[in-house]
Amino acid sequence: MQKTVAIVGLGLIGGSYAKALARHPHYKIIGIDKDPEIIRMAISDKAISQGGDASSLPLADIVLLALYPQATIDYIKENGDKFKKGAIVCDLCGVKSAVCEEIIPFSKEKGFAFIGAHPMAGKEVSGYQNSEATLFQNSSFIITPQDAPHEAIDTLTKLAFDAGFCQVVQTTPHDHDKRIAFTSQLPHAIACAYVKSPRSRQYKGFSAGSFKDVSRVALINEKLWSELFLMNSNKLSDEIDLLIKHLSEIRDAMDRGDKESLEKLLADSRKIMEEL
Amino acid sequence: MQKTVAIVGLGLIGGSYAKALARHPHYKIIGIDKDPEIIRMAISDKAISQGGDASSLPLADIVLLALYPQATIDYIKENGDKFKKGAIVCDLCGVKSAVCEEIIPFSKEKGFAFIGAHPMAGKEVSGYQNSEATLFQNSSFIITPQDAPHEAIDTLTKLAFDAGFCQVVQTTPHDHDKRIAFTSQLPHAIACAYVKSPRSRQYKGFSAGSFKDVSRVALINEKLWSELFLMNSNKLSDEIDLLIKHLSEIRDAMDRGDKESLEKLLADSRKIMEEL
Repeated sequence: MQKTVAIVGLGLIGGSYAKALARHPHYKIIGIDKDPEIIRMAISDKAISQGGDASSLPLADIVLLALYPQATIDYIKENGDKFKKGAIVCDLCGVKSAVCEEIIPFSKEKGFAFIGAHPMAGKEVSGYQNSEATLFQNSSFIITPQDAPHEAIDTLTKLAFDAGFCQVVQTTPHDHDKRIAFTSQLPHAIACAYVKSPRSRQYKGFSAGSFKDVSRVALINEKLWSELFLMNSNKLSDEIDLLIKHLSEIRDAMDRGDKESLEKLLADSRKIMEEL
Repeated sequence: MQKTVAIVGLGLIGGSYAKALARHPHYKIIGIDKDPEIIRMAISDKAISQGGDASSLPLADIVLLALYPQATIDYIKENGDKFKKGAIVCDLCGVKSAVCEEIIPFSKEKGFAFIGAHPMAGKEVSGYQNSEATLFQNSSFIITPQDAPHEAIDTLTKLAFDAGFCQVVQTTPHDHDKRIAFTSQLPHAIACAYVKSPRSRQYKGFSAGSFKDVSRVALINEKLWSELFLMNSNKLSDEIDLLIKHLSEIRDAMDRGDKESLEKLLADSRKIMEEL
């Protein structure tokens, strides 16, 4: 049976979902975007079968919200009465506790199933123009369903595989946020701090790859990432403190000229990498 | 006219030089390594035309030292009388001031031309077994010749291009060490500090690439890198302090919930990246 999927926000992520799912006759895609030009492009690309706005929400069995975190919360709150009874509503933000804590009680009140999700895929560029049907291939789709109905979890899991993800990971919003603070937000904070050295303007010819690896994600969208950082600030703050502690240990051993301690600090890191 | 090149230490770097230069009839390669098995392998690979030891040094027009930094200094000091008059002796260590300050006056006394160098290429694995003729392709060869004779610089530059490097960068030992502290040593310190978070054991499924980018070089050779860090400790220590300062600014803006400052801090980094 065909499912109607409304995708709200046809940027990099929403556009890629539309293109990936449009390949499956199983899904009919309604695209919702404030820019009519994007809607026209998406129809012409056959990424969506029609455009719409919030008034189209009652048609959707599944609603995917590909908006910034605060905009996601606001959109759901403003349109709480428009979702079909029993519809599956899913956000795609990089933080989960802040969204789930606010939306799950609201969804129960309004009679739709909310599932927090986070696609582990992206690009350094944004916008529909950069979206592609293959963006999610070989990537992980994280969901934090809490006590959502099993059928809703199953439907969303199937949708993830249909969109190209290679695995679906279920966890709690708290666990997601703790792990993502380390694996994704901390590298972004490191990159932004790293490139501020005056030496970053002189790296050419002096790096065999390390500079590019560390600095890559400093090409950051500051509006999006400020929201993500602030909605997960305790956990990211803890990771930054821990990193500073471990950097200071290396610096202090160096400053003391203490080769034995320095070797041990580096060897400990090597051993962790060997285990991973 | 054929030049005789002695390569001391047939590990990843020395072995790769041998394999790259052996393709050119212009060079005759003598391999010097304390492990006779490596010499046998290198002869069988036609990477060297003969094995040797310090007693072969007087035959060499060019001596490339592919040893650890302290071992490089010790080897040159111990064998100062064996180099041919006017021979070009070149180290390949990742730090330059510590080596050049000790060796350049010594080389003048002994009558050979010493040029410090640093090939911007490597691998996460070491040893002759991992060496390859193409290791240096598309890489940068840095030299810090100070007041070495022009002919020596020209000869070493030609040798670098013959080994596959795509550019040769001339600078001073001080400038090299300052830039390398940032582009190479700091990323290694970051990687080693980063993986020490307990969350590193749980990264799977929670990273779209950032975790791997930052952690890659934590698979470190602690004996080599402790030497490199300690021989450049002031400059690396300064870069660590600067990174901690910039990380702390991000953390403090987050802790204050100060969205405007946080956005500005991230936007500043983005702008630097756009300029690079």
